[in-house]
Amino acid sequence: MLASTAFSISNLQPIQFSAVSDPNHLQTDHASLSLSTAQTTQPASAPQSKPPERKLKGSQQLNRWSRARAIRAGRKLDRAGNKAESNVISLFQAGNSDLAHSDSLAGSGEEDDVDATTAKSIYMVSDGTGWTAEHSVNVALGQFEHCLVDRGCAVNTHLFSGIDDVEQLVEIVKQAAKEGALLVYTLADPSMAEASKSACKLWSVPSIDVLGPITEAIASHLSVSPSGLPRGAPGRNSLTEEYFRRIEAIEFTIKQDDGALPDNLNKADIVLVGVSRTGKTPLSIYLAQMGYKVANVPIVMGIEVPRTLFQVGPGKIFGLTINPVVLQTIRKARAKSLGFHGEVKSNYSEMDYIREELEYVGKIFAQNPSWPVIEVTGKAIEETAAVVLRLYHDRKQKHCMPRISKRY
Amino acid sequence: MLASTAFSISNLQPIQFSAVSDPNHLQTDHASLSLSTAQTTQPASAPQSKPPERKLKGSQQLNRWSRARAIRAGRKLDRAGNKAESNVISLFQAGNSDLAHSDSLAGSGEEDDVDATTAKSIYMVSDGTGWTAEHSVNVALGQFEHCLVDRGCAVNTHLFSGIDDVEQLVEIVKQAAKEGALLVYTLADPSMAEASKSACKLWSVPSIDVLGPITEAIASHLSVSPSGLPRGAPGRNSLTEEYFRRIEAIEFTIKQDDGALPDNLNKADIVLVGVSRTGKTPLSIYLAQMGYKVANVPIVMGIEVPRTLFQVGPGKIFGLTINPVVLQTIRKARAKSLGFHGEVKSNYSEMDYIREELEYVGKIFAQNPSWPVIEVTGKAIEETAAVVLRLYHDRKQKHCMPRISKRY
Repeated sequence: MLASTAFSISNLQPIQFSAVSDPNHLQTDHASLSLSTAQTTQPASAPQSKPPERKLKGSQQLNRWSRARAIRAGRKLDRAGNKAESNVISLFQAGNSDLAHSDSLAGSGEEDDVDATTAKSIYMVSDGTGWTAEHSVNVALGQFEHCLVDRGCAVNTHLFSGIDDVEQLVEIVKQAAKEGALLVYTLADPSMAEASKSACKLWSVPSIDVLGPITEAIASHLSVSPSGLPRGAPGRNSLTEEYFRRIEAIEFTIKQDDGALPDNLNKADIVLVGVSRTGKTPLSIYLAQMGYKVANVPIVMGIEVPRTLFQVGPGKIFGLTINPVVLQTIRKARAKSLGFHGEVKSNYSEMDYIREELEYVGKIFAQNPSWPVIEVTGKAIEETAAVVLRLYHDRKQKHCMPRISKRY
Repeated sequence: MLASTAFSISNLQPIQFSAVSDPNHLQTDHASLSLSTAQTTQPASAPQSKPPERKLKGSQQLNRWSRARAIRAGRKLDRAGNKAESNVISLFQAGNSDLAHSDSLAGSGEEDDVDATTAKSIYMVSDGTGWTAEHSVNVALGQFEHCLVDRGCAVNTHLFSGIDDVEQLVEIVKQAAKEGALLVYTLADPSMAEASKSACKLWSVPSIDVLGPITEAIASHLSVSPSGLPRGAPGRNSLTEEYFRRIEAIEFTIKQDDGALPDNLNKADIVLVGVSRTGKTPLSIYLAQMGYKVANVPIVMGIEVPRTLFQVGPGKIFGLTINPVVLQTIRKARAKSLGFHGEVKSNYSEMDYIREELEYVGKIFAQNPSWPVIEVTGKAIEETAAVVLRLYHDRKQKHCMPRISKRY
């Protein structure tokens, strides 16, 4: 069985972008990135042990910016080895006097929207993908829904990922100081984390190290030092066997969506059963991302339930049910978005039909008492996933307190 | 445009479960959970404002355990209001003397595997879904790959989610003390977080509060108090408009997988183009989970590229390319798992064919210089996603330093 890891989004708001079309800019991007294409036509004897150089993974713009800074600073462009320590000292020597002139991060395109001045900023900086910083900020902001919902407090977040250079880091901290932003960082490289801490202290930027404390606690618990390598760095192996099994789970789950290929049901780890619009598809995908092979089987009156469903091993099937009034609301919205305006599928969102369908599925559930039935009304996919997996693991491994266990 | 939030898994190992089949146990689960089914047949006048009671969302086993404790403690079963404060005092009075007898968390089924004694334990406790704790531990463990890979240090993690009762919490802390575990928690309810801190101090359990520091920093930054409500609690609104748009993105992306419905390409936010086995499908799903509508178009020699691809707006299309040797390895594994043993699709994983196909796609990329081409060799999906989104947002909103911005 595979591992489980997930994300939850508690409050999302649209991003208002100023779309700027600049063919030259795009062309430049492509010119830079197609270097990689050329590379791939070369045979490699040991490709897995030679990951592409990290500097290739960023955009041309980042490299250009970085080079421009280097030239202005009179440094050599070749940055072999970690110059974090020496860089941060010279950059710090510039001190606050440099801050007033620190405008190199400002947009070269259009100005920020007007309400940017009233919104509070949160900067997120990472030497990896930045997804952990982003996820943590997202979840923490869920604690301020009451304020964000009525716009009493607006928040702008800015994620800077793949920052592996102290100079860039210091520039971001200075910009955060200018904007009065909170800085949230995940920097695996200890010299980068130290530089961030020092720079934030120097420019009085409130900051939070998201992964530092937990990494230190685990290091002390295991009596092993952390590698200090950000994700994607040479020496880090992202492509483990389990990683590929997770991808296999996603591909399996897509192929099994919406009752497809019923002969494969016995190959699934988890089978979800319910009427239309109980969230089977997004829940399946969410669980697949955690490494579970999921199949979902819709129950529709008048369409026979595949016989293979009743041959699935115990502990794999979960029924989903929902309040009929909520289901009607969701179905009406769905019918509208699909372009049905009363003509086709007219009974799909009618209350009598919905009640009848829920009674029909209720009978199937009653005939199969080993299937737990989960009430999804008002639950986010992440919450339903938590219930499904708690039951799933609990039934496999009996404990007095339900838990999901995993071995590394 | 939608928001981005994600997860990354850096190192997964299989969980070895002792599968225990117990029809009575399953039946009990169902009996409890089908209460919810019965509920749904009642019409509700304002269903959205009346989420189901939290106690229904757990498993029967958790409730049973909780009730048994309550009866032993001579308390009333009705636990209206937050009794965290009073509970923790009485539970703490039991002190260390209680610890030796704290076996109620031990498995009632089979014993743990033998190597559980040598592995270090990490307990994760949450009053929500627990996904943030799990994600953070996962990512932090990525810093110890060098030790975990060669099994120099084995780690067992145990996730306890939906823990909204101080008594359960204290029991978990006591068990952590017994096992010598590290305790990682995300407890939105401040009295629960305080109880966890005190209990860990009392029983000398090393502990880490994952979300506390960032929540406090944001509270101070916004000058607003956090709600203290865990995800899924009444008063928390998980089902925002953006949440439903994210689900729509997932459904769109599944329907567009593998070049399906080319007439819809213009409706996508992001279109991925590449030969078979460059990771288009898992990358599409990963981005969809973040709220982006993604379509992917496979390039196969001899099959015409859909004309609609060339009508997609600028800045939406991304090419994926890969080292041919790595691609061959992946394709061979794929062909094997699909059951092809040389007969059908024989050229699929042949080097000459692969080179020819990569040259073919390279020409298409060269003819469309506005498409950035991303080298995926050795990159995890999360890393490629970070590159795609950095470029995507950078092209929409011009900044000297690439960033992904979002408004709450």
